[in-house]
Amino acid sequence: MLAKAHSYTVKGQQFRTPEQARELSLLLPRLFLQFFSGTSLILKDDAGIRAFLVGFHAADNDDEAYIHFVGVDPRLRGQGMARRLYAEFFRRAAMAGRTEIRAITSPRNAGSIAFHRAMGFAVEEGDREVGGVPVRSDYDGPGQDRVCFHLKIAE
Amino acid sequence: MLAKAHSYTVKGQQFRTPEQARELSLLLPRLFLQFFSGTSLILKDDAGIRAFLVGFHAADNDDEAYIHFVGVDPRLRGQGMARRLYAEFFRRAAMAGRTEIRAITSPRNAGSIAFHRAMGFAVEEGDREVGGVPVRSDYDGPGQDRVCFHLKIAE
Repeated sequence: MLAKAHSYTVKGQQFRTPEQARELSLLLPRLFLQFFSGTSLILKDDAGIRAFLVGFHAADNDDEAYIHFVGVDPRLRGQGMARRLYAEFFRRAAMAGRTEIRAITSPRNAGSIAFHRAMGFAVEEGDREVGGVPVRSDYDGPGQDRVCFHLKIAE
Repeated sequence: MLAKAHSYTVKGQQFRTPEQARELSLLLPRLFLQFFSGTSLILKDDAGIRAFLVGFHAADNDDEAYIHFVGVDPRLRGQGMARRLYAEFFRRAAMAGRTEIRAITSPRNAGSIAFHRAMGFAVEEGDREVGGVPVRSDYDGPGQDRVCFHLKIAE
């Protein structure tokens, strides 16, 4: 279960410029922690929060679950934290009767694209390709291109 | 009911700079239209979409509904469009058993603050005041101060 508001911070870490921190703030407004904590996850140890996943189940249908944002402490990269969070999100989604998982990422984020493919996600059709990956132009507004992932977790 | 993805655009209108358009894109990612259209609203006429409200019901509890974003065609400002959308959102929320409505705005947005007060919202306590209005500093991340509104629509 995601802890409440005090777990919300984007300070420090891998964000090099105020613009990046600001953009992250806008990607992850408090509302996701405030209203969808029941489908979000954190990994904690004695040092505090080490990784988290913010996701929710679609309100418009009973099938889809959506992973909006995953953060891992940079010191713990490459240790399978994101994989563990995704697997647990899938498990809980399946228990709640959800059969499909969706997620998106930026075409520039090669690590995220490789990660989602390794987790079994298919890349949805796009209107163009970037480095061989289908991309949907202006998906999230002008200039906001996205790669769209889709995974069936049950029939 | 909010129309699907083709209704998503922030082009033209009152956004004067690419930064403003970009920020709006980030405030209103497609996911809200994709997964919460059932609680969102549009006002259309022969000319197309004239105003819209994006909102949802909290997944973490059965009481709260949240208004995330409202847009009105600038040519139709001052004609009560936002008021109509809010009233319809309240009505539907109440029918679904929701008893509380929440919304937030920027401390700089005097028009929005006046509007929410006129609609009966109370401003929640803050850690400081701006022009006599309680503000929560860093509410949505560093530098992202917000005014928080709350309205009981039933006991």
